[in-house]
Amino acid sequence: MNTSGQNMYQLAKLLFPICRSITGDGVRDTLKILKSIYSDIKIYEVPTGTQVFDWCVPKEWNIRDAYIKNSNGEKILDFQKNNLHVVGYSLPINKKVNLTELKEIIYTQPDQPEVIPYITSYYKERYGFCMSENQKNELLEDEYHIYIDSELKNGSLTYGEIIIPGETKKEIFLSTYICHPSMANNELSGPVVAIYLAKWLANLEKRRYTYRIIFIPETIGSITYLSRNLECLKQNVIAGFNLSCVGDNRTFSYVESRYGNTLADKVAKNILKYYYPDYRTYTFLQRGSDERQYNAPGVDLPVCAICRSKYGRYPEYHTSKDDMTLISPEGLQGAYEAYQECIIGLENNYNYKINCLCEPQLGKRGLYPTISQKGGYNEVKAMTDFIAYADGRNDLFDISNIIGVPVKKLIPVVDKLIKNNLITRV
Amino acid sequence: MNTSGQNMYQLAKLLFPICRSITGDGVRDTLKILKSIYSDIKIYEVPTGTQVFDWCVPKEWNIRDAYIKNSNGEKILDFQKNNLHVVGYSLPINKKVNLTELKEIIYTQPDQPEVIPYITSYYKERYGFCMSENQKNELLEDEYHIYIDSELKNGSLTYGEIIIPGETKKEIFLSTYICHPSMANNELSGPVVAIYLAKWLANLEKRRYTYRIIFIPETIGSITYLSRNLECLKQNVIAGFNLSCVGDNRTFSYVESRYGNTLADKVAKNILKYYYPDYRTYTFLQRGSDERQYNAPGVDLPVCAICRSKYGRYPEYHTSKDDMTLISPEGLQGAYEAYQECIIGLENNYNYKINCLCEPQLGKRGLYPTISQKGGYNEVKAMTDFIAYADGRNDLFDISNIIGVPVKKLIPVVDKLIKNNLITRV
Amino acid sequence: MNTSGQNMYQLAKLLFPICRSITGDGVRDTLKILKSIYSDIKIYEVPTGTQVFDWCVPKEWNIRDAYIKNSNGEKILDFQKNNLHVVGYSLPINKKVNLTELKEIIYTQPDQPEVIPYITSYYKERYGFCMSENQKNELLEDEYHIYIDSELKNGSLTYGEIIIPGETKKEIFLSTYICHPSMANNELSGPVVAIYLAKWLANLEKRRYTYRIIFIPETIGSITYLSRNLECLKQNVIAGFNLSCVGDNRTFSYVESRYGNTLADKVAKNILKYYYPDYRTYTFLQRGSDERQYNAPGVDLPVCAICRSKYGRYPEYHTSKDDMTLISPEGLQGAYEAYQECIIGLENNYNYKINCLCEPQLGKRGLYPTISQKGGYNEVKAMTDFIAYADGRNDLFDISNIIGVPVKKLIPVVDKLIKNNLITRV
Repeated sequence: MNTSGQNMYQLAKLLFPICRSITGDGVRDTLKILKSIYSDIKIYEVPTGTQVFDWCVPKEWNIRDAYIKNSNGEKILDFQKNNLHVVGYSLPINKKVNLTELKEIIYTQPDQPEVIPYITSYYKERYGFCMSENQKNELLEDEYHIYIDSELKNGSLTYGEIIIPGETKKEIFLSTYICHPSMANNELSGPVVAIYLAKWLANLEKRRYTYRIIFIPETIGSITYLSRNLECLKQNVIAGFNLSCVGDNRTFSYVESRYGNTLADKVAKNILKYYYPDYRTYTFLQRGSDERQYNAPGVDLPVCAICRSKYGRYPEYHTSKDDMTLISPEGLQGAYEAYQECIIGLENNYNYKINCLCEPQLGKRGLYPTISQKGGYNEVKAMTDFIAYADGRNDLFDISNIIGVPVKKLIPVVDKLIKNNLITRV
Repeated sequence: MNTSGQNMYQLAKLLFPICRSITGDGVRDTLKILKSIYSDIKIYEVPTGTQVFDWCVPKEWNIRDAYIKNSNGEKILDFQKNNLHVVGYSLPINKKVNLTELKEIIYTQPDQPEVIPYITSYYKERYGFCMSENQKNELLEDEYHIYIDSELKNGSLTYGEIIIPGETKKEIFLSTYICHPSMANNELSGPVVAIYLAKWLANLEKRRYTYRIIFIPETIGSITYLSRNLECLKQNVIAGFNLSCVGDNRTFSYVESRYGNTLADKVAKNILKYYYPDYRTYTFLQRGSDERQYNAPGVDLPVCAICRSKYGRYPEYHTSKDDMTLISPEGLQGAYEAYQECIIGLENNYNYKINCLCEPQLGKRGLYPTISQKGGYNEVKAMTDFIAYADGRNDLFDISNIIGVPVKKLIPVVDKLIKNNLITRV
Repeated sequence: MNTSGQNMYQLAKLLFPICRSITGDGVRDTLKILKSIYSDIKIYEVPTGTQVFDWCVPKEWNIRDAYIKNSNGEKILDFQKNNLHVVGYSLPINKKVNLTELKEIIYTQPDQPEVIPYITSYYKERYGFCMSENQKNELLEDEYHIYIDSELKNGSLTYGEIIIPGETKKEIFLSTYICHPSMANNELSGPVVAIYLAKWLANLEKRRYTYRIIFIPETIGSITYLSRNLECLKQNVIAGFNLSCVGDNRTFSYVESRYGNTLADKVAKNILKYYYPDYRTYTFLQRGSDERQYNAPGVDLPVCAICRSKYGRYPEYHTSKDDMTLISPEGLQGAYEAYQECIIGLENNYNYKINCLCEPQLGKRGLYPTISQKGGYNEVKAMTDFIAYADGRNDLFDISNIIGVPVKKLIPVVDKLIKNNLITRV
């Protein structure tokens, strides 16, 4: 593996301070930095007001500064210190308020009194500040100056798209987010791992499949993207993954597609079973990311997700604690490798069929020990088991599941058998 | 719910003393009283000797009195006190016997020495008395006068039928018994709950389905009914239930159809899962009521049963202890409500399909909170989960099973979605 | 059952000393003795060099004598005492060697230091001796005389075939081995049980199916046989069993076919479930006998195996400890009876369908008690349950599985129902 978790972690560090939202310059700045890692990323702008299925592209939001000052002129809250302090999509404001008025526009996470929560209001115009419950409780009667220098205007929604062509038009699809402000696992891990996967894929000697990797704002971004690309995706995508929360080092999680029965699910379950057997499975009822759109009825794309600690399931989720200390080079690297294994498996995934009747004589090809003694066959067991199920009805993942051998150990077996003209792809 | 268990219990009390059998005036008297609750019940008479599939309608049996007197002229057994004292379908007899002869025609339940068992001999002509094992053991040497004033003659088998028309000819089918003498759970509970369900159904503002509710003697009655209505039933019945043992307050039971896979089974399992999660499942091997006929090969009606304490599984079954103290207003009401839920579910059961691609924007319709914070979505989870599986291939019960929400909580969700033009019945 | 385990055990004793291999006179002598039990066995010779699918019939191997002498002229190893002492297919040799050279051609089973292992080298020409690890460790520096009087020449591979015709050309197929030298469970038990099954089958008054029983060397024998008979087998065999390791009295084992879903599997699982409920199941991944060839992709015969202690799973396997004390008359008899039950079940295996609608009136045919009291139906439960599932879609084994009654208890039920014209084979 030629990319280290360290590189991914450094990229995340660079991206962390940017105040992203579902639209605006934060997204554009983020895409620009990603482009510096992998240049062949195409940027699209979709104008405010564009109808996308049942939704409408919202106004573009930008923010330059925000604070709350007390009557002494001291900043008791400063957007420059943490961009979670402002409710996402807040309208501009500049006025004096008393304590009661102030509290009405302050959001906290009472069950985690020390964190700043991540809060947005994309589809109803309001303004608001976020702080810790502890800070809120310590506020005194005073006259406060609240100030948000933001702008909500007709503009556009921005997203990035990488297409890496392969031998066929059939596609593997990866999707990730660029709409979260300063949070690390959810979500700088997704775009960081995705861009390094793109780099790795582009450098492969050959690719059977075409790879489509998109960097979008959550929900409105995937709906927008689908509204512009649905037919093409439905025709070509054979498996897809939503990359989110792939940066911490605690565990692996798998989120099923709508019925948990697509090729992507088969791949994810197979790889995780051998790669990280303790992984947790979440049904589609526990979905919560863009697999919601990709699996919507009528969209029906074969998309599931492999996460580390899954969104909504770790305490730091959507708070100021989801910071650069939560993710790690090892965590990013683990997810990167899991996805690599999925992709390598898919690239090698065929239904195989043995070319002769009865077991082939492996011995005469040097593939079998010439002396028969009990207990002596372990080294060729994977090969004979593979052959036993190479009946044309099982693909590589099926056989891996049946015979209990990881796909990455089967690939060299397949190569040997093909070289000896013993099996054929069907 | 506009009918109380109290009304059902009072009706059972009124019916309890009547000596019913598979034919005769006890059945007619019972149907007359049921007609006083719901008048639109049609009474049929099928003559003795009529061939019904492999069976033949038996002679009609009526009984006026029966007793055993000792040599002092004291009645030591009196049919007027408990009609279980005479073996069902006993021939008339009037003679003196000694103790040995008497014991030959006395039936008891030795493992429950204090009960009078319920015993019948429909298809072999004999006579006999039933008493407790304790009483039998105390009988002294004496000359006994045994007397049964009964009559076995050509007559007819009587049954009642209610048809409540709906918008379609497709039917929900309910079947229950009117052939048991003075026993309460098995079986006055069945006809009592059934007649009140009929009353409730007839008063509904609209009915999608036609309802067929029959009051028959067990086995020969269902066979007779099927021999006259099989084609119509096979064409129209989409789900049916055998109502038996629905009066006590101990538990719920579900008896599977032949393969446990009909719509009726799906409905019963779904409703009981949420309504009474501790319910017990019995396979078709543990059948024992008219589901035997409705599920016979070639008949193949989609019929299962929801019981309270199932026939054959509670100690009082088929004894004098199955009396009015065993059942209760609460027990009857519980069964009545469970069947109401099944019916309401069926009336609302369609395959649903979402009208737009990707998730609809619920917020703009006031169906979703406008501010996004973690943990804040519980109230709309049922709606978004419903939408996620409204892909046209699942009916209401399927979706309820998948997303873990009772059908009765989904019906208002469905109404909202239809009103907002977001889903369509398919 | 007219054959005793004692007869089978005596036959095994007679066959035990013969030095068998995959070719040669040991095989011919073995077949001659089997012929003395059941004469209608046809012997085939397939010349060395014949191409059989991916394999080639090897040279014929015969051995007269072999030993190792020390410098005192004492035989420290003697083929006449145990034919496992020579590696199967050893080339002839006659020379003096020092201790180091000797040890290079000595094979032991180090984890079982007291046994002589069974070792072969069919497809690479070498020579070698087998002894216990203990003996090897005690060898002193000396000049040894090693001597093997064997011959490897163009000849033929020998196998036996019994065809016992039945009413149809559809076949039950049994296959077993005659290639193991002096070992008892694996493998004299197989041919011994098979020849007695042949005898029993030939004496049956009528046979619905044709029986094909073959006595072959393992692997090359089944491949050779398949290469000459594949089309016929594929057309006719409805169920087959590989008979191996059927002689000890420890347990029963069942080895699945490739997907565990053939008629043979259904039969084996059903019979063992009732006959020996503690039996162990082995998946096809734990295969290791000729079911490998019969289940190879493209061959696809419905073949599984019922064993006692399965090959590879008992400590004496492929060693000198697999001797006549390991197997027993009881062990052989148990396997013989299990296979008889499989065959009797198959002979009686039809899909059955009830001839009337609703339950038949068993009472009028004397098949049901005339008086109805609770708890009184056990004796007819198997009959009514059979009827309930005699809907044409279940065969005898399916019904046995559904209703939990062994096939051998259902056969008399079926007979009664057919006699009463209540069911039909479909």
